[in-house]
Amino acid sequence: MKKIITLLSDFGLRDPYVAEMKGVILTICPGAKIVDITHEVEKFDIRMGAFLLAVATPYFPQGTIHVAVVDPGVGTKRRPIIVETARSVYVGPDNGLLLLSAQKEGLKHVYHITDDRIFSKEVSRTFHGRDVFAPVAAYLARGAEASRFGREVLNPVKPSFAEPVLRGGKILGEVLHIDGFGNIITNISTAFLDEIKASEGRLLTVAVDGRSMTLRLCGTYGDAPSSKPLALVGSSSFLEVAVNMGSAEEAFKTKPGGLVEVSLSTA
Amino acid sequence: MKKIITLLSDFGLRDPYVAEMKGVILTICPGAKIVDITHEVEKFDIRMGAFLLAVATPYFPQGTIHVAVVDPGVGTKRRPIIVETARSVYVGPDNGLLLLSAQKEGLKHVYHITDDRIFSKEVSRTFHGRDVFAPVAAYLARGAEASRFGREVLNPVKPSFAEPVLRGGKILGEVLHIDGFGNIITNISTAFLDEIKASEGRLLTVAVDGRSMTLRLCGTYGDAPSSKPLALVGSSSFLEVAVNMGSAEEAFKTKPGGLVEVSLSTA
Amino acid sequence: MKKIITLLSDFGLRDPYVAEMKGVILTICPGAKIVDITHEVEKFDIRMGAFLLAVATPYFPQGTIHVAVVDPGVGTKRRPIIVETARSVYVGPDNGLLLLSAQKEGLKHVYHITDDRIFSKEVSRTFHGRDVFAPVAAYLARGAEASRFGREVLNPVKPSFAEPVLRGGKILGEVLHIDGFGNIITNISTAFLDEIKASEGRLLTVAVDGRSMTLRLCGTYGDAPSSKPLALVGSSSFLEVAVNMGSAEEAFKTKPGGLVEVSLSTA
Repeated sequence: MKKIITLLSDFGLRDPYVAEMKGVILTICPGAKIVDITHEVEKFDIRMGAFLLAVATPYFPQGTIHVAVVDPGVGTKRRPIIVETARSVYVGPDNGLLLLSAQKEGLKHVYHITDDRIFSKEVSRTFHGRDVFAPVAAYLARGAEASRFGREVLNPVKPSFAEPVLRGGKILGEVLHIDGFGNIITNISTAFLDEIKASEGRLLTVAVDGRSMTLRLCGTYGDAPSSKPLALVGSSSFLEVAVNMGSAEEAFKTKPGGLVEVSLSTA
Repeated sequence: MKKIITLLSDFGLRDPYVAEMKGVILTICPGAKIVDITHEVEKFDIRMGAFLLAVATPYFPQGTIHVAVVDPGVGTKRRPIIVETARSVYVGPDNGLLLLSAQKEGLKHVYHITDDRIFSKEVSRTFHGRDVFAPVAAYLARGAEASRFGREVLNPVKPSFAEPVLRGGKILGEVLHIDGFGNIITNISTAFLDEIKASEGRLLTVAVDGRSMTLRLCGTYGDAPSSKPLALVGSSSFLEVAVNMGSAEEAFKTKPGGLVEVSLSTA
Repeated sequence: MKKIITLLSDFGLRDPYVAEMKGVILTICPGAKIVDITHEVEKFDIRMGAFLLAVATPYFPQGTIHVAVVDPGVGTKRRPIIVETARSVYVGPDNGLLLLSAQKEGLKHVYHITDDRIFSKEVSRTFHGRDVFAPVAAYLARGAEASRFGREVLNPVKPSFAEPVLRGGKILGEVLHIDGFGNIITNISTAFLDEIKASEGRLLTVAVDGRSMTLRLCGTYGDAPSSKPLALVGSSSFLEVAVNMGSAEEAFKTKPGGLVEVSLSTA
């Protein structure tokens, strides 16, 4: 049985840190299939890591092991944990990073990793990705039970994601992520758009950080003229603000956490 | 039989898009061996994608499946296609991206992908890489015939690459690509250099965007003194302008599409 | 037996060069497991490549084949070599790149690669990574003996790394690398810290390029207050200067090769 182990971190690809984790995994579990989700999470940005992890994991097979490391508290009292869900296993720090994705899948058990017999011989206090999370993931891939690594945790740290709010026919949300195309991905799901009866083809008034525009809710980028802004439900099923063949980030000058207000246009 | 599936896109590695495609492929075809060609194609730059694809594919084994996604028209009327050649299979949008490489290998058949039974359950209109091309590639890797996905296409979109022109002992070409070392790769093949009798060791007059220099046609970068410019036939078999231990891009201030004129130096 | 082949280079991931090497390897040895160490070594920076290679290789299994290409002299007289150590095999240019890592593992034999029967049919003089090192690594992965590729080399080029010096209770060293977090990694190992009795919790006077600070020797980043500088022994077992949740590179404005002086603080 060849297990898939995915990796997500804020390590970047210039330094050897990701490769060190892969070497450790392949030493313990030579048959593991390692797939990078991303290593370009902004340094220490747990929310961005949690969002990217939650977007990518639904596309991996049942039984995949996801290792995620955005870990400003490495070596302090924050706990290393394993999270079991209905379809996957997560390994990483107990700082909220794993929970957004795990909750979507149906969280089953969380274990505090304390069994240091399986760790790398010398556990550095600065690189648990390599010395704790990678070996734990590799042993899980070899068939070890999550419960053997430590006691169950009943109060894992929850991620701090805001839910949008509906007020007077207006959806109040925020910017979750801006992708490499400059698309502004909000936390507004289709359920909220349904509430204000915003269906494809309708005009919306969208304000991002106070800058307001009237945008058509399109089906894809190319439905708008070239270099014109539009709204659409993106591939992650969230409302996106985009510019066809251009960058909405430049047009709206916002960043993750920016305020988003959406209502049906009365124009 | 373990099939190789390569991926090329303009998605970058910061966002989870590439990982989503890999997850889809491994869910359908767990034994696939996935290799990234590059994901750093300039956004929407079909010519750059086509060039990088055509440079890399000759080095992959017979039977490799190449998935390429630089797709400004995603979700519009542009067709998703499969291209069969004498040695490989290509999957991607019908916008010219696949054809440069496929024509070099000997194009056999092009099919319009319309059989939506094998697509991801909900096909987003914005991410065919994940919802159409990845599953098609994975089923091809499992042995599906390309012809079962749709009808043959007789008029695929051709890439718009200029061929160099020979005029009065002068080769008129253009800049195809500037690599990470700042090497300027032109569309001038060795056949054109033979025409003007430009053999290794000869001096050439090379003008790039009007800036003219006399350069020796060298065998490798280190044949020129450090930080001095030179011409050479690069590893892609095209004429390159380079600076030993430096950047020709900085010296010539050009970009892809820039005009290149080459003649034997009379000095 | 599935062999691991790692790749390290200064090629970046935007160009198709790394993919071309992978295609060549998989054509010759379809079962090879290829792992990237990094391709973001600064162009032509042999010392940086040697350092990153030496940091990553200890975490890979016995028998791993490491291909490293930072090769300003490609196609000139510098020799292509294979280095056998007590636990690994290295393939690359004879310019010092491989030796730092190989010496740590216990160097056994160095061979000059001259058997051109196994090279790619046309060996370009500009891309030995693809035309020499990749095929050699793939044949080694298939079980070929290193000694069959050429004669033993008795004087391989040594890397030019300075060792720290102890003078009057002061350690004089240098900056080896600055990682993506802005952590300043020095060439000062724990043995030197022991010499001046610098144990965890002690205050050190650390001067980097003449800029002096009093720093506590911590166990991990989070032992210092947020955005405050600290010293610690990093995951590579070298003294690091860091800023908790910030960048020591910005605080000290240094770069690789910068001078580092460390002594016990008398304050």
